[in-house]
Amino acid sequence: MKRILIIGIGAGNPEYVTMQAVNALNQVDVFFVMDKGEAKAKLIELRSEIIERYVKDRGYRIVETASPERGPDGANYVGAVEQLNRDKQDVFERLIADELADGECGAFLVWGDPSLYDSTMRIVGAIAQSGRHAFEYEVIPGISSVQALAAKHRVALNAIGKSVAITNGRGIAQGFPSGVDSVIVMLDVQNAFRQVIDEDVDIYWGAYVGTPDEIFVAGKLSEVADEVERKRAEARKKEGWIMDTYLLRRR
Amino acid sequence: MKRILIIGIGAGNPEYVTMQAVNALNQVDVFFVMDKGEAKAKLIELRSEIIERYVKDRGYRIVETASPERGPDGANYVGAVEQLNRDKQDVFERLIADELADGECGAFLVWGDPSLYDSTMRIVGAIAQSGRHAFEYEVIPGISSVQALAAKHRVALNAIGKSVAITNGRGIAQGFPSGVDSVIVMLDVQNAFRQVIDEDVDIYWGAYVGTPDEIFVAGKLSEVADEVERKRAEARKKEGWIMDTYLLRRR
Ligand SMILES: C[S@@+](CC[C@H](N)C(=O)[O-])C[C@H]1O[C@@H](n2cnc3c(N)ncnc32)[C@H](O)[C@@H]1O
Ligand SMILES: C[S@@+](CC[C@H](N)C(=O)[O-])C[C@H]1O[C@@H](n2cnc3c(N)ncnc32)[C@H](O)[C@@H]1O
Repeated sequence: MKRILIIGIGAGNPEYVTMQAVNALNQVDVFFVMDKGEAKAKLIELRSEIIERYVKDRGYRIVETASPERGPDGANYVGAVEQLNRDKQDVFERLIADELADGECGAFLVWGDPSLYDSTMRIVGAIAQSGRHAFEYEVIPGISSVQALAAKHRVALNAIGKSVAITNGRGIAQGFPSGVDSVIVMLDVQNAFRQVIDEDVDIYWGAYVGTPDEIFVAGKLSEVADEVERKRAEARKKEGWIMDTYLLRRR
Repeated sequence: MKRILIIGIGAGNPEYVTMQAVNALNQVDVFFVMDKGEAKAKLIELRSEIIERYVKDRGYRIVETASPERGPDGANYVGAVEQLNRDKQDVFERLIADELADGECGAFLVWGDPSLYDSTMRIVGAIAQSGRHAFEYEVIPGISSVQALAAKHRVALNAIGKSVAITNGRGIAQGFPSGVDSVIVMLDVQNAFRQVIDEDVDIYWGAYVGTPDEIFVAGKLSEVADEVERKRAEARKKEGWIMDTYLLRRR
């Protein structure tokens, strides 16, 4: 039997790795690493750092593959992601079939927590369900960027007894969700917080959280929106890419 | 200067502890442990196990105090929690003033992640703001029960491109929130999922997740609701208490 581990490695700081993940890393024969182009080179570096730092006295192989790219979204974001996932599934199936011997353990290292805005579980699950490959698989949770953000701002995600929504840039662009007073926004490429600037909310924003380049801004949204926008633009220009998350909380 | 660490220790499995938390635990002079009555004895045991397992070659003190109890909620759950937090704040202030010397580091170990349905950050923040005690404080994220649940069920929290809500039993009792197709429910004391049983949703339920006693049920809500209710009742009877969480996802 082959074994696959989907290991959450935390969202930036190599010390976010859990003891469970360290133990899992030390069972791995083959690490599968998806290369996502230059912009993500730093993320791949961090993955290698984690493998080197935590794997002790054990031989392993690293198999790098080009990650399929997402086609243009057009009006259909979900369709584009589903197509991307099918392309990734083909790649994953080939890796499992050709690069992993029977009795060996392969691993996908997932940024942050595998349960939030990541397709690895979904794709590996689909392969398992297809019955085309015999393997077992297990998922190991990791510290998500949401939690890293909250810890750094020292702010709870929920108000007392209240609900929280987690959404993406497209979600918040449709307005502040009803029924919650806290919203976490990930994957916002276009300063979508501008769409809710008239709401009486505080923003807790962070980019590259947990890394040496981390940046934070907090305050009343209408007062700090310009600063967030400026810092985003500067950082994106300097680094060539950005990953940022924010919490919006009704006052 | 005094230092306070608010350390997320993960939600059940001692291996959920991060490397950052392990390093933090090894800086602590005084662990503050709140005793919440017999029902929670197991949780306190787990805390002690974590301290013993991960703190190396370092002396420390453990200060136990009775945790204030929440008064009857009546119609005002938030008010009851706020009063509880004021009572806790008095206790925390006394601990910081009397049990921690200048230059020492004190720690509160928080179950799961400190940012989700936990008051420690809020209370320590209020004390810091009061200006009555001079100290620095830092928050260390931990694996929440939500992530542990998702990892064990090997299911993503969000559907592709969609939003997620995190709520409590009272929240879901008001109906399936609009605008999301995934809802995570914590702190449900009364099988509140019964209130949404007519919705076309799957439930991914887990109790004592990450511990040797963990129990899981998954399936179409209307088909497995009875099973969940029975397992909850049995477990609560056997253990004297229960902690469980579930994800509801539109099909
Ligand atoms: C594809 S999602 C993956 C999320 C990841 N699974 C997690 O648990 O954080 C990528 C998004 O996560 C957020 N993100 C990831 N790492 C981050 C970090 N270190 N700082 C701020 N945001 C981050 C950003 O919103 C980014 O657009
Ligand atoms: C006061 S909240 C604290 C949540 C915690 N901060 C976290 O991150 O998981 C307590 C609730 O968390 C959930 N919970 C905590 N630990 C759990 C576990 N091991 N398994 C299932 N649910 C758990 C239950 O819903 C419980 O009612």
